[in-house]
Amino acid sequence: MPIIEMHLMTGRSVEQKRAVAAAITEAVCTTLGVKAETVRILVTEHGSEDFSVAGMTAGLRTERQQESEGI
Amino acid sequence: MPIIEMHLMTGRSVEQKRAVAAAITEAVCTTLGVKAETVRILVTEHGSEDFSVAGMTAGLRTERQQESEGI
Amino acid sequence: MPIIEMHLMTGRSVEQKRAVAAAITEAVCTTLGVKAETVRILVTEHGSEDFSVAGMTAGLRTERQQESEGI
Amino acid sequence: MPIIEMHLMTGRSVEQKRAVAAAITEAVCTTLGVKAETVRILVTEHGSEDFSVAGMTAGLRTERQQESEGI
Amino acid sequence: MPIIEMHLMTGRSVEQKRAVAAAITEAVCTTLGVKAETVRILVTEHGSEDFSVAGMTAGLRTERQQESEGI
Amino acid sequence: MPIIEMHLMTGRSVEQKRAVAAAITEAVCTTLGVKAETVRILVTEHGSEDFSVAGMTAGLRTERQQESEGI
Repeated sequence: MPIIEMHLMTGRSVEQKRAVAAAITEAVCTTLGVKAETVRILVTEHGSEDFSVAGMTAGLRTERQQESEGI
Repeated sequence: MPIIEMHLMTGRSVEQKRAVAAAITEAVCTTLGVKAETVRILVTEHGSEDFSVAGMTAGLRTERQQESEGI
Repeated sequence: MPIIEMHLMTGRSVEQKRAVAAAITEAVCTTLGVKAETVRILVTEHGSEDFSVAGMTAGLRTERQQESEGI
Repeated sequence: MPIIEMHLMTGRSVEQKRAVAAAITEAVCTTLGVKAETVRILVTEHGSEDFSVAGMTAGLRTERQQESEGI
Repeated sequence: MPIIEMHLMTGRSVEQKRAVAAAITEAVCTTLGVKAETVRILVTEHGSEDFSVAGMTAGLRTERQQESEGI
Repeated sequence: MPIIEMHLMTGRSVEQKRAVAAAITEAVCTTLGVKAETVRILVTEHGSEDFSVAGMTAGLRTERQQESEGI
């Protein structure tokens, strides 16, 4: 511990994933006083139809915004 | 909050995913008295070898059923 | 499946928990065409220091709001 | 219940997935005294850039090791 | 990895928790060929109003059963 | 998104929880280029019998260590 699960929208680059893993681990070690070796992070990526806010998937939201902005 | 993670078998259509996101959000808002904007839903899909009941994956179960029904 | 994990702030009544379980299950059955028996819902409650938005726990947010409103 | 989520690195064979589902279910039934039908297992697979220990993704760790071992 | 989250109804004894942790770990090591040191298990317990099947919480189900059995 | 679930051993202070929420959020915003308002963190605490490594709960491990160190 700590064990961290992070849910992201798909599409992050390898560089971003490596950077966020390092940065979160440092943040946790500094504030909780744990050793880096105890920190594990699992990332799960979600497509645009697999995440919703206010009952609307991200994909539908994008579609609606594009419609409202004209073709 | 609420934050909801929903595990589904793979294969739902975009229409189904949009419909279930809207319906769950309405269900939660009505019964818990929260605003729709606070409801987030994450969907994770699992393949037929990544879900098991009673120690048998869905894929194995299907295979067994097909066998028992003859070729 | 579907298996649903719902994260809530602590403090919901038994009546609310029963109502939201019934309502989500109905929402899922109607939109995904699954049988109610296949729907499982797990609720995890989080205290005010165990949920944060924008880097601020709910507890700290409440504290700040009370301060800004006087006394 | 029990409901079990298992996070694995990608790349397990169908045979391994079926074997581990059966073995975990038996382990749970024996030690907790539950019926196999109540045990559900969800597997989520993570790629090498989606799992990190000590702030380093599995992919980066492999890369570093290969470098240190020479080409 | 593997990292395992197990959801249980509240009320397991310390002995049961220690036994199931050992048994699952052995099951995973044997079938997936991993070292025991890589297996981490997290248990989350859920009260009777925090788990539902078919839209009915475990608490409500018990209540109904007791009613149907007389006083 | 990102939505982050962090599993901790029980016993962190309110100050630690507030500090880690702020630090993780900043780490995520800096490396992924997201706005702080989109970052949600859920903390779940686990008791010493609810977390195991290598098939041994944290509670059992502590007990064994105390025994091996004499009374």
